[in-house]
Amino acid sequence: MNNTTQTPVTIIGLGRMGQALASAFLEAGHPTTVWNRTASKADQLVADGALLAPTVGDALKAGSLTIVCVTDYQAMHVLLGADDIELDGMTLVNLTSGDSAQAREAAQWAEQRGARYLDGAIMAPPQAIGSVGAVILHSGSQEDFEAHETTLGALGTVTYLGADHGLASLYDVAGLAMMWSVLNAWLQGAALLRTAGVDAATYAPFAQRMATEVAGWLPGHAEQIDRGSFPAEVASLETHVRAMAHLIEESEAVGVNAELPKLIKAMADRAIAAGHGGEQYPVLIEEFGKPRDN
Amino acid sequence: MNNTTQTPVTIIGLGRMGQALASAFLEAGHPTTVWNRTASKADQLVADGALLAPTVGDALKAGSLTIVCVTDYQAMHVLLGADDIELDGMTLVNLTSGDSAQAREAAQWAEQRGARYLDGAIMAPPQAIGSVGAVILHSGSQEDFEAHETTLGALGTVTYLGADHGLASLYDVAGLAMMWSVLNAWLQGAALLRTAGVDAATYAPFAQRMATEVAGWLPGHAEQIDRGSFPAEVASLETHVRAMAHLIEESEAVGVNAELPKLIKAMADRAIAAGHGGEQYPVLIEEFGKPRDN
Repeated sequence: MNNTTQTPVTIIGLGRMGQALASAFLEAGHPTTVWNRTASKADQLVADGALLAPTVGDALKAGSLTIVCVTDYQAMHVLLGADDIELDGMTLVNLTSGDSAQAREAAQWAEQRGARYLDGAIMAPPQAIGSVGAVILHSGSQEDFEAHETTLGALGTVTYLGADHGLASLYDVAGLAMMWSVLNAWLQGAALLRTAGVDAATYAPFAQRMATEVAGWLPGHAEQIDRGSFPAEVASLETHVRAMAHLIEESEAVGVNAELPKLIKAMADRAIAAGHGGEQYPVLIEEFGKPRDN
Repeated sequence: MNNTTQTPVTIIGLGRMGQALASAFLEAGHPTTVWNRTASKADQLVADGALLAPTVGDALKAGSLTIVCVTDYQAMHVLLGADDIELDGMTLVNLTSGDSAQAREAAQWAEQRGARYLDGAIMAPPQAIGSVGAVILHSGSQEDFEAHETTLGALGTVTYLGADHGLASLYDVAGLAMMWSVLNAWLQGAALLRTAGVDAATYAPFAQRMATEVAGWLPGHAEQIDRGSFPAEVASLETHVRAMAHLIEESEAVGVNAELPKLIKAMADRAIAAGHGGEQYPVLIEEFGKPRDN
């Protein structure tokens, strides 16, 4: 590709993920400047055409778009908060892992320094960066996102979530909660079936079909949640709880872990105790939406 | 339809589900005999063409295929275990809710009485019976299943799982564990996003996509489980645990329930403590596969 037509980018932080980001920009033909505390982490990237800046300040001056991917938000504040660092007019895209409060604080801080700020969360391992399978979530000003969407697209499938800078972190952990829950339910089932001599490969298509089918119910459940009204059109919570008891009994009877089944039932039991036994499953949003306080 | 060409069926038990089963057989044109302790539950079915038998014994004599759908396995044993009940040569399809051990015991009991026995689990609410959306799982002799597959097909989408009579119950609770886990992860995420003013309808497509994508990983994870080898091809358990900590922190910070996130992390922490931190997620099958013993 012809580097002269591509936006210059700077990458601060060359851990495994930072290296993957820089590498994807180089692949896409962007003039790429990098900085890392331990400069040797840049060796391969320099061999591939990256420019290694001697200081963070120098790295920032290489262009107007800087991607930050460091250990945590504190590390970003230390690196970019120094008095001699000029952020005015710069766009920072912070792909460092953190929570929604840290993202919102960082956005305020950057604004005070005259910078535009997009927060981001990478829902992919380093080796997937640069492929469409790498989903990267962004939140902040839509105008800023759209100004850099094409450039950021070199990293994977970039998604814009909204103006609230905390959204990328929130969607990230919410999505991961879904990932771990599907994987755990699958492991619970695989462990149950294994006691009957059924191998995981035999059980997998059933679990996959179940997860996919139930995922298709979510838009309908969303309607009940957003209306705050949970008529038992399909099944009441009380009907669910009877089957949950079977799951616990079966898990214990065949000697597999029953913690997940018990948590599932405990939350439903509390909702029933709160008077929601005749309502439908999404009424549990009320249990999920508040801290466990006893 | 022409009743004379369809297999006669008997339904024992006319709770909401039993009524739905009888109704579906009537719809499909099967001569349908019913029995229930409280005979008035049969009124509508009789109006629709069912024959109400005065005793269980009479109901069984109406044909060679009997569907049992009563409160629990104990109720079935009481009803069909009486000395004057003739089961020899009969095929019993037991759709009563129970666990795998009860199903296996019932199969032995039926065999001693000279009956063929299929166990079954209905993964649908009564109102779905008779539609393709009603999935009904069966286990027992494949020959017996195939002999009645067409007839049972009047109830929904019938699936054969294997000769072990316990399989229908095991797949049932395993599938339900997946259902509740997807729904709970979705509620966890919806609760998190709601704190940022994102409504459930906005979040739903993201959660749905995530669940569907992760479900697609299961056959690959099954290979690792069946090999008993868990190389960290994508991400190590230690990498997951760092993100799990973010989920807990974020949940607590915004004031939503953190029990599910904490359970997710606790199981991974135990696997790491057992020396599996550098391995991939499916290694957690070892935690799921044993009772929690401390």
